[in-house]
Amino acid sequence: MVKKAVCIMSGGMDSTLCATMAKNQGYEIIALHFDYNQRTMKREKRAFEEICDRLRIEKRLNLDVSFVADIGGNSLTDASLNVPKDGLGDEIPNTYVPFRNGIFISIAAALAEKEGAEAIFIGVVEEDSSGYPDCSAKFIERINSAINQGTSPNFNVKIITPLVNLRKADIVAKSIEMNSPVELTWSCYESEDIACGECDSCRLRLNGFKRAGVKDPIQYKK
Amino acid sequence: MVKKAVCIMSGGMDSTLCATMAKNQGYEIIALHFDYNQRTMKREKRAFEEICDRLRIEKRLNLDVSFVADIGGNSLTDASLNVPKDGLGDEIPNTYVPFRNGIFISIAAALAEKEGAEAIFIGVVEEDSSGYPDCSAKFIERINSAINQGTSPNFNVKIITPLVNLRKADIVAKSIEMNSPVELTWSCYESEDIACGECDSCRLRLNGFKRAGVKDPIQYKK
Repeated sequence: MVKKAVCIMSGGMDSTLCATMAKNQGYEIIALHFDYNQRTMKREKRAFEEICDRLRIEKRLNLDVSFVADIGGNSLTDASLNVPKDGLGDEIPNTYVPFRNGIFISIAAALAEKEGAEAIFIGVVEEDSSGYPDCSAKFIERINSAINQGTSPNFNVKIITPLVNLRKADIVAKSIEMNSPVELTWSCYESEDIACGECDSCRLRLNGFKRAGVKDPIQYKK
Repeated sequence: MVKKAVCIMSGGMDSTLCATMAKNQGYEIIALHFDYNQRTMKREKRAFEEICDRLRIEKRLNLDVSFVADIGGNSLTDASLNVPKDGLGDEIPNTYVPFRNGIFISIAAALAEKEGAEAIFIGVVEEDSSGYPDCSAKFIERINSAINQGTSPNFNVKIITPLVNLRKADIVAKSIEMNSPVELTWSCYESEDIACGECDSCRLRLNGFKRAGVKDPIQYKK
């Protein structure tokens, strides 16, 4: 019997590597993407579709979770707040969408139960990231336990986070090694045409490529 | 300082009693309702608004989570499936929306973090219910632990489930005792004009009133 996995895919580099790994491990993938009126929604959606095409993933679900913007409180969905461009500090940045991964993983769990999938892949990175609290291994472990308690007794799913302990440079190196389509991915928090090169997400990405000694195939404004 | 609570309110009898209790405990309430293209969406929304008016709850959020219907697999959102009317058995009925409370609680957690609320009230009932796995005390405990792990370190929330161990008759008795507006609530899974009296939800409600020795103030077809 074919083993199935729900892959949460943002269109970014991390989740694309995750999906590439799941594919290599022989899973039939159900790709799950979220639109939530984030600044770069259209560009991320395009990246998602192109990556699915490349990885030959047929089953795709693009869910409108724009209620996340109704909750508000973050600069990715609230145009009155600025995306920070002065680098990461010790505090949680205003790009933090409260409990976003908690919501996304809960939705992935519902889909996994519906589809009979045995795994959920998510590309969370604990270190070398923006420091969001819902990206930690400890959180993933706890929500995994909650999911298996709160779904049908005959359903059991494992949340797989292959990148959680990697640094951005390792992710770049592994992406190249596994032929993950980095050139199709989108990371920038702010722009949809050419990546800004200055937001936290661009900085982390560029820094990862630099340390890995590889040139990022996408274009940047700066 | 005023203490705040997010109350998940469906418009039904259980969550209405929960909100009445939260109000009596002195919480400022942020009422959270979900639309997900369920059969009785409009009627539930009306009940929600009328109950909020009665309880003088000003802060209300009605979120469109119709992606739940896109995931599918249940008779509440899939018109091709019939709502069962032959009583509850040992199996999980087809009205089960996979991990619905998991999703709803995750969203409530995001809102609680945004608003600085210290509690989330949800009217789950473990026994004497439809037997959904995401209504158990053990599940609530685990997801509460996941939420506090996956949100900001300076945020801590407690999920309060005052009804989890009650039987439907106790809920009716308590509702009358606390002057909870049962006459404004809606429980029926199928109809929006007059309650069908035959679906699991109507049966549970009617049985509760019968055992409590109280007449249900709402009308039924049968």
